[in-house]
Amino acid sequence: MASSAPMPKRDPKPDKTQSETSPPRAVEPRGARRKRETRERLLRAAFELIAERGADAVAINEITEAADVGFGSFYNHFESKDAIHTAVLRMVFDGFGSALDELSASIEDPAEKVSVATRHAIATATREPLWGQLLLREWYRPETFPSGLGPRLLRDIIAGVAGKRFKVADPLVALVLAGGTVVAAVGLQLAVGGLGSKLVDQAGLSGVDIDRRVASTLLQALGIKQAEAETIAGRALPILHWTPNFSTSESS
Amino acid sequence: MASSAPMPKRDPKPDKTQSETSPPRAVEPRGARRKRETRERLLRAAFELIAERGADAVAINEITEAADVGFGSFYNHFESKDAIHTAVLRMVFDGFGSALDELSASIEDPAEKVSVATRHAIATATREPLWGQLLLREWYRPETFPSGLGPRLLRDIIAGVAGKRFKVADPLVALVLAGGTVVAAVGLQLAVGGLGSKLVDQAGLSGVDIDRRVASTLLQALGIKQAEAETIAGRALPILHWTPNFSTSESS
Repeated sequence: MASSAPMPKRDPKPDKTQSETSPPRAVEPRGARRKRETRERLLRAAFELIAERGADAVAINEITEAADVGFGSFYNHFESKDAIHTAVLRMVFDGFGSALDELSASIEDPAEKVSVATRHAIATATREPLWGQLLLREWYRPETFPSGLGPRLLRDIIAGVAGKRFKVADPLVALVLAGGTVVAAVGLQLAVGGLGSKLVDQAGLSGVDIDRRVASTLLQALGIKQAEAETIAGRALPILHWTPNFSTSESS
Repeated sequence: MASSAPMPKRDPKPDKTQSETSPPRAVEPRGARRKRETRERLLRAAFELIAERGADAVAINEITEAADVGFGSFYNHFESKDAIHTAVLRMVFDGFGSALDELSASIEDPAEKVSVATRHAIATATREPLWGQLLLREWYRPETFPSGLGPRLLRDIIAGVAGKRFKVADPLVALVLAGGTVVAAVGLQLAVGGLGSKLVDQAGLSGVDIDRRVASTLLQALGIKQAEAETIAGRALPILHWTPNFSTSESS
């Protein structure tokens, strides 16, 4: 790329005014770009393997093979399997949470925020089953708990209680209820077609339109009246432009 | 063991009138007893290893080593790792569910049944962390979903709706909410001391007496008024005589 500007020693902060579709680092030296791409391949391979089998069942050489990277190169990017595991969790759960925050920035009503978060967590798990699988495996671990949906739901519950929008006597247990309900809805979605759905069929229950139904029931549990909860949960859902993404600005 | 009674060719059904503390098979031949004990050791070792690491990270030779059994003997008892894994899930989740059914047989009120089930699931996970860990790992799998708490909660919810005890518009989502809340409460209990509790502390929330608080909140989500929900959740909890138990009458 031709540029008469002098090359900066360090990468500048991304220019917020440039189009989101233009490549982020047109002037990045080849070596740095390769390093970044290798790191990205390792993270994606680790994400897929850990989601499918759990971290304890994945060895570093399996990650490097799936990423088509030499075994020794792994340690240029990560200190250990734990390090790449933690990096994956942060990227996929905080990535989802940040995208959600951006999407909901203009929403004032905590009830609508909770509805949008719930519906998008279920929709994302359905569209990206590996993400859903990783959520089911890892949501309760101390490394995951402070990322992603948990602290955001807690924030919205506390705001809703403070503003007398929610009737909640016990905010911690309301968080347990809200988080657990979202995770269980993801489990139901991913089990559809399995024995889970047989159980549902036998009881004569329908599994369609789960995201709205879960959001409505959750809002009612937080003290919103049924008719209003159904209205909020039935609103058109703003589109979330997010998929698990492993490109990073830091190159180690 | 001296016995003048003729040895039966097949083991008789256990005598329901004999004391529960007496050994169940006083006249069992030594070979059968050894086989049963070996099977029991394999099941317990598999339970512990799978709860700690997940089934995908456990090899058959690790199970036989932990059980102090020769590798080849494994196949006298189980066809595969999947077979012992499924047997463990059934025994620990259906075992808990059956013990709960027995305990709750005299309870008529679906609200009290849900409260007792919720509180005992949380108490059992706290008393037997490996059981709690396995629940967190496996609750959503198609092999687990029909065992244990899930179908029992669904049964109690449906009975409560039919008897107009619960105000639930959507029984499937009520099951998702109830099951998810119990699982998330178990996750919170097992994470206490980790980052999860830091998050809780930062928000100025207390983690004490979680079983009653979760039961009360859950009953309110099912339509019971707050004061009554707190009364039901605060009742003395009937004692559950159950720990993960791997002795069986079938010897393969």
